[in-house]
Amino acid sequence: MTRVNINPERLCAAHREMAQLGATGNGGVNRAALTEDDIEVHRRLAERASQRGFAVEIDDFGNQFMRRPAGSGNRAALASGSHSDSQPTGGRFDGIYGVLAAFEVLEAVDDAGLVTRHPLEAVIWNNEEGVRFLPTAFGSAVHVGNACLEEMLAARDGNGITMAAAVASLRAAIPKARPRALATPLAGFVEAHIEQGPNLEERGCTIGLVTGIQGTRKFSVEVIGEEAHAGTTPRRTRRDAFFEAIAAVNALHQAFEDPDDVVRFTIGQFEVFPGALAVVPGRVSFRIDFRHPDAEVLQQLGDRVAGICRAAMDRCRVEVVESGRAAPTAFEGAVPRAIRQAVTERGLAWLSLPSGAGHDARHLARFCPTGMIFIPCAGGISHNEREHAADADLVAGAQVLADTLLILDDDLAGPGSP
Amino acid sequence: MTRVNINPERLCAAHREMAQLGATGNGGVNRAALTEDDIEVHRRLAERASQRGFAVEIDDFGNQFMRRPAGSGNRAALASGSHSDSQPTGGRFDGIYGVLAAFEVLEAVDDAGLVTRHPLEAVIWNNEEGVRFLPTAFGSAVHVGNACLEEMLAARDGNGITMAAAVASLRAAIPKARPRALATPLAGFVEAHIEQGPNLEERGCTIGLVTGIQGTRKFSVEVIGEEAHAGTTPRRTRRDAFFEAIAAVNALHQAFEDPDDVVRFTIGQFEVFPGALAVVPGRVSFRIDFRHPDAEVLQQLGDRVAGICRAAMDRCRVEVVESGRAAPTAFEGAVPRAIRQAVTERGLAWLSLPSGAGHDARHLARFCPTGMIFIPCAGGISHNEREHAADADLVAGAQVLADTLLILDDDLAGPGSP
Repeated sequence: MTRVNINPERLCAAHREMAQLGATGNGGVNRAALTEDDIEVHRRLAERASQRGFAVEIDDFGNQFMRRPAGSGNRAALASGSHSDSQPTGGRFDGIYGVLAAFEVLEAVDDAGLVTRHPLEAVIWNNEEGVRFLPTAFGSAVHVGNACLEEMLAARDGNGITMAAAVASLRAAIPKARPRALATPLAGFVEAHIEQGPNLEERGCTIGLVTGIQGTRKFSVEVIGEEAHAGTTPRRTRRDAFFEAIAAVNALHQAFEDPDDVVRFTIGQFEVFPGALAVVPGRVSFRIDFRHPDAEVLQQLGDRVAGICRAAMDRCRVEVVESGRAAPTAFEGAVPRAIRQAVTERGLAWLSLPSGAGHDARHLARFCPTGMIFIPCAGGISHNEREHAADADLVAGAQVLADTLLILDDDLAGPGSP
Repeated sequence: MTRVNINPERLCAAHREMAQLGATGNGGVNRAALTEDDIEVHRRLAERASQRGFAVEIDDFGNQFMRRPAGSGNRAALASGSHSDSQPTGGRFDGIYGVLAAFEVLEAVDDAGLVTRHPLEAVIWNNEEGVRFLPTAFGSAVHVGNACLEEMLAARDGNGITMAAAVASLRAAIPKARPRALATPLAGFVEAHIEQGPNLEERGCTIGLVTGIQGTRKFSVEVIGEEAHAGTTPRRTRRDAFFEAIAAVNALHQAFEDPDDVVRFTIGQFEVFPGALAVVPGRVSFRIDFRHPDAEVLQQLGDRVAGICRAAMDRCRVEVVESGRAAPTAFEGAVPRAIRQAVTERGLAWLSLPSGAGHDARHLARFCPTGMIFIPCAGGISHNEREHAADADLVAGAQVLADTLLILDDDLAGPGSP
């Protein structure tokens, strides 16, 4: 039952400090992976780690690990962290919060002089947002072996700079960092993050106990009609691809409507060709982003997309291609159990909920016991300079993270272990 | 009751000849205004005109007039014609048919040695399709004073070449052409054209007696919502600009549905922003092309657009701007009367119908007695390389044009005139 109190002022000050790196001037940050600003985040935390005597390690893909050693033994580390990169007009909390909360836990434990059974690590996963490099490469995916290192190091940004060169710049900025082997075993991983949705705020909860990450299916739909003169062609002879694409969209919206508001169905891309005012469209191309936490719903509802589109056609034809799929990830076992114990001990209002967005924890879940802690963000707004989380929630989340890691330090050590 | 028979072989041969100039290889033509190919059309007709002793004149905007003189007197000319330019993947009949039919009438009258009361003119109006030069400048509009000459001569194509320079190239190719004053009075104008719609073919008619050109109203609609994360944002908190734009489109489609299929309602442009797969759209911009031959329907139905869009909004807002308007043009009086007399005399199956597309005759109608003759085109397909009109219809249309001009030569001369 050893617990330590995190230092609220230090945590919030660290937040304000990091928000200056890549600040957009509108309250947000633009801090693409391993740009000068992002490397500076890495460098400052590495420096603070060194001052504490924590080890600093960087793997071949630029993921950075800062470790406070265990009292004894060779146990794998208990890790926590997230990412420091942002969207181009991103907020000050997405990602970096999980990094700073994890580092605060290490400092708080260190301040308390606590001897832990597992080494405790704070991790900065590289390139989570996938904004700068194509193809997109999640650092966490590469680290645990869910993506190919060589291929992803060859990814290039808009200026032709490779990920390999960007990682070399990171190493050059932190010369004392030691190499870290990919897929070095971890005892467990906990990620703290803002919710990026409105549920916690709406229900007045401070902590979200994340049950998993919902699955996704992505579809590309192409409706093919025939171009015609908008002034001369009567409706009865038109093969209007726009009109029939709208019929398909209406039928899809109806099929994916759910009173519980759990289904996430989005059409974010919709293009009309040739796109001329006076030409009846001959072709429409649109894409569907469908997400659901339940694998069965994901399967069954997703399987209906093509049939619904076909049934909506009258004089056009339609092609439906599934362009991407990720199964739902469930966070189960020791980590969610520890988070639940922590929030219960602290008497905080909490809520079980799935994550709508993808996170580094999705990749870690295949690698070691994993879980996530959410804190509220104002209006559920994220990927937006208006993103905001209250200091009190930042503090509460970091405290729950500290408690969780210490609970796990006991629970994961095995019965009767020292 | 003097009539002349046109020469079917000569007319069809002229068609095949001109279809080679700018031929796309797929049965269509790409002959933008005053390009080398288009100028060659002008040059060949000017040469044929000169061989007959017809006058050739070019005005300051590159409209070309070929005139067979009257027997005596100073009457204004009775003119017929259309344009020789095409869409980039246009057909072999749109425009050029009306030019060649008009020229055939002059030759047929000349072959018959007929003495007419009015000079007869075949006209090639410049730049009807408006593909090459921006801003678009209808030669017929400039000629009759519906557009500003200086402004339109300054229009430039994609290579920076001005319309003024293009007109100079035309003059250089036809050095014997004399200048023609803008707005030189005309006794009347008749334009023969393919229908570009399916009505004549569907009803088995050979000739369309065009009652006018329908009016148009164009609207730009902008739906403003808020970008959000497709994975995390529940439906209840979304301000999905795509979803609400579709609601507006559905309501518009319903309001503009008419059992008679006279309303022309087209959404040819529809853009979604930011247009990312995983981002709930924050903005949708679309444009409406609405046409109707009845000024009152055009007014009343068009006036409903903004209200319908506003009523469809839930959590987004909408801005509706009317971006263009042209009143319906009615062809009335001597010219339609003469066309009706001609088709009745010849015992042809004919139909009264409005034109869905705009034509040079729209501008002439404000200037002198004007009318149009349509012939069928296969499937109503136009602005397309597949555009097709049967030889028999080309011939019938040109014969009706010849009869019409000779009827007008009597009717417009005034009672008791020589």
